[in-house]
Amino acid sequence: MLAFGIGLANRAADGTVLDVFFPHPLHAPSDAIANAIREVLGPIEGSTTLELDDARLARLIGAFDALGEDALADSARALQSARTLTVATVLDGDDPISSTGEAYLKLHLLSWRFVTPNSLNLEGIFAALPTVAWTSDGPIAVDELPEAQLRARAAGRTLTVHGVDKFPRMVDYVVPAGVRIADASRIRLGAYLGEGTTVMHEGQVNFNAGTLGAGMIEGRISQGVVVGADTDLGGGSSTMGTLSGGGKERVSVGERCLIGANGGTGISLGDRCTIAAGVYVTAGSPITLLDESGAPVRVVKGRDLSGQSDLLFIQNAETGRLECRTNRSAIELNEALHAHN
Amino acid sequence: MLAFGIGLANRAADGTVLDVFFPHPLHAPSDAIANAIREVLGPIEGSTTLELDDARLARLIGAFDALGEDALADSARALQSARTLTVATVLDGDDPISSTGEAYLKLHLLSWRFVTPNSLNLEGIFAALPTVAWTSDGPIAVDELPEAQLRARAAGRTLTVHGVDKFPRMVDYVVPAGVRIADASRIRLGAYLGEGTTVMHEGQVNFNAGTLGAGMIEGRISQGVVVGADTDLGGGSSTMGTLSGGGKERVSVGERCLIGANGGTGISLGDRCTIAAGVYVTAGSPITLLDESGAPVRVVKGRDLSGQSDLLFIQNAETGRLECRTNRSAIELNEALHAHN
Amino acid sequence: MLAFGIGLANRAADGTVLDVFFPHPLHAPSDAIANAIREVLGPIEGSTTLELDDARLARLIGAFDALGEDALADSARALQSARTLTVATVLDGDDPISSTGEAYLKLHLLSWRFVTPNSLNLEGIFAALPTVAWTSDGPIAVDELPEAQLRARAAGRTLTVHGVDKFPRMVDYVVPAGVRIADASRIRLGAYLGEGTTVMHEGQVNFNAGTLGAGMIEGRISQGVVVGADTDLGGGSSTMGTLSGGGKERVSVGERCLIGANGGTGISLGDRCTIAAGVYVTAGSPITLLDESGAPVRVVKGRDLSGQSDLLFIQNAETGRLECRTNRSAIELNEALHAHN
Repeated sequence: MLAFGIGLANRAADGTVLDVFFPHPLHAPSDAIANAIREVLGPIEGSTTLELDDARLARLIGAFDALGEDALADSARALQSARTLTVATVLDGDDPISSTGEAYLKLHLLSWRFVTPNSLNLEGIFAALPTVAWTSDGPIAVDELPEAQLRARAAGRTLTVHGVDKFPRMVDYVVPAGVRIADASRIRLGAYLGEGTTVMHEGQVNFNAGTLGAGMIEGRISQGVVVGADTDLGGGSSTMGTLSGGGKERVSVGERCLIGANGGTGISLGDRCTIAAGVYVTAGSPITLLDESGAPVRVVKGRDLSGQSDLLFIQNAETGRLECRTNRSAIELNEALHAHN
Repeated sequence: MLAFGIGLANRAADGTVLDVFFPHPLHAPSDAIANAIREVLGPIEGSTTLELDDARLARLIGAFDALGEDALADSARALQSARTLTVATVLDGDDPISSTGEAYLKLHLLSWRFVTPNSLNLEGIFAALPTVAWTSDGPIAVDELPEAQLRARAAGRTLTVHGVDKFPRMVDYVVPAGVRIADASRIRLGAYLGEGTTVMHEGQVNFNAGTLGAGMIEGRISQGVVVGADTDLGGGSSTMGTLSGGGKERVSVGERCLIGANGGTGISLGDRCTIAAGVYVTAGSPITLLDESGAPVRVVKGRDLSGQSDLLFIQNAETGRLECRTNRSAIELNEALHAHN
Repeated sequence: MLAFGIGLANRAADGTVLDVFFPHPLHAPSDAIANAIREVLGPIEGSTTLELDDARLARLIGAFDALGEDALADSARALQSARTLTVATVLDGDDPISSTGEAYLKLHLLSWRFVTPNSLNLEGIFAALPTVAWTSDGPIAVDELPEAQLRARAAGRTLTVHGVDKFPRMVDYVVPAGVRIADASRIRLGAYLGEGTTVMHEGQVNFNAGTLGAGMIEGRISQGVVVGADTDLGGGSSTMGTLSGGGKERVSVGERCLIGANGGTGISLGDRCTIAAGVYVTAGSPITLLDESGAPVRVVKGRDLSGQSDLLFIQNAETGRLECRTNRSAIELNEALHAHN
């Protein structure tokens, strides 16, 4: 069993599940736990989301108690009195997503740091997630919103709509340990934030993307992009995603890198790379490669340098030339480029 | 009659109208409806906002019922029990704005997609809109806020201030069909979002601005700027507004364009134009125009290319030169430029 | 006495102070007031934060009444019925910060415009500020949040987390007169916003940073950065901070400057300077200095031009060269540069 969660779901008037909150998701549960779950839920084919009635919830709690899984049992017990729908989601393997519960459980696994970005099968996630109005009264189906807004106004109440989107804000579901997030509206559920990460107001992290360790994030981490430990993304800096902008390559950024303010990258960076403030490196950019003495070695495409370490990208302010400065000799650089090909 | 709305207004202690919510605004109502409105409201000179007492509201509902305007009548009925001030706003023609109600009705018309940006007379809108503290308790007059904050704190309650501005967040008043908005705090009432538009966290849309069709908006659409269908604005990209930055020209962007991440434009783009990531094109920029073979034709100002289609703007990474690459011959390009003059 | 405040504190279950709201902070109180405070609070060594019981609060109110300090007394009276902890914070001098109350009082002094950025000793502020979950239910200790979220969900209530940070949003504590703030989540308590400042959605202001007068702020004002009156920061523009990016110099921007959209600076600007849209000036950039006739005078480093007035920074679109255009003769420019050395 890949994962299991007991969750609270909000539903639209027509029964559509709008979201699921899993307070205590399990990743790769032990055989004992998995067997107990299967015994209570009955035969399950593949991955699924089931409504959980009081009796089955009680039996699950009993099974967890019997196994000495106290935290898990307590978390489930807290749902016994819940006023919203309780569900159980099982991910039998890592199949394409076929229910809203599965989508939410996978997003929880990422934000709980059980799995890193790009390691889960997220096929079908857009179809499985309804567009929801995220409001101060909780999730509301978009077509029920006007009526809800009118009712609230007429009653002298205030209904604030935080967003209208398929993905909710991460921190309303999961706050991983050891992070700071200046503006929570900028981080989607499914983001993976390593311990020690600070995301400032201008930082933004999409689902299935994030930081593997500590870092100061004042730029945008696009879907699929992973940033290594101790890397800083300067204010307004950009990592190019595969969902937009035509990028085919999945960008990653290594450790101890710095992308300067308003800079950006469409190629992967290895470790200890720097992109100067205001400079955008793309896969197709012709870049003049300089050796340790500052002498030009040759002009390469950005993609030829993808993933290499110890590079400094600047735009020469006297010539306007996009340069990659290195601490290596011309011979070493040519060898590295050939190895890459 | 240009437009009509029955709305709910919040007021300051001194009676100042802070905002008006129109749940069902009418654009260009039929003569039958307009006559019914005039009959109930009495003689109206030009555009105006009136308080609506129970009797007149009931008469309007009766008139709408008699005309078979069920949705309109139902919407008005929902206001009968309202605990806040009910008003009626009539826009007789498209005059300068002289009351808060008129300003709000025009902003609603835009966000409801009844009218496109730059098609309404918005003169006087800044004077007609008071600066309001938009809070979790609803709109509060700025000078009443400290007292309200102290009272809430002392009572152990939380009062969250979302903004202090003349314009509220669009989605608290209108959510047009078929859009996604990741962070609702970035879109002002009066934005026009075409069906199929997704505004990501870094996107921002001002009033009297927006998208005419579908598009992925991760950049900023300034006041007065209109973006055509199927155009993508990359993360952090910029369109130059007329309210700031000294721009005189009103910028528009055509269909199927792409402005790359952290790029921007101070000129209008026709259809199928691309600005590379990190490149900013301004009206005064000297741009080297290249023909279909990549040969330079001549150096023109950005404004000379305003509104033309099928252009690719890049900064040559080997020379630093700002270039406009085209799929046309030198002769065609010279003709197009002359036609423009 | 540097400052004094009576505040309302929220506490974690273990007693940790999470935040303090000072509705009426005093800067440099008169000797009469300071003496009255000392008489009630007893002997104080240096700066401190004390719990204030009913009796001492009543005595302070009496003392303020006796001194004819009506507004101060009224503000304190409003706290008598408070359901949260009431504290008194005294800043005896401008020492390093040793308590959460002191940190909050200093941040209030900045946002109330009693003191300008960089004029207070903020040493120790990060250690004195706990990381807090800022929620729609008020400040919650991060380790208590999961339990609070589960409880709220199970009860069918919505708990929105606005951020997880050491610093709260300014406007939930202080709204200085004469400002507009489109998105309040972007301005930290401790920001200093001059009268007439408008911060648009893309603007961002850190603590100990801000604007001295009016201005249109659509860019980021980093910690320690001060911007003069009538200066515009274009959309997405950047000022380099000392906390990140490796900057050593503290950046300031003078009056009547314009930093264009997506531009930025790592050096200080004097008055009436312009940086073109999309151009980033750093301390290490080699910049070609042009005289009044447009002739190159020499190449200097960005830092050599730091703080000078009447400069226009552009990137020459034909050569890619970063240029600084001036209205001065070559002789004047050389003299100005020598004076700087």
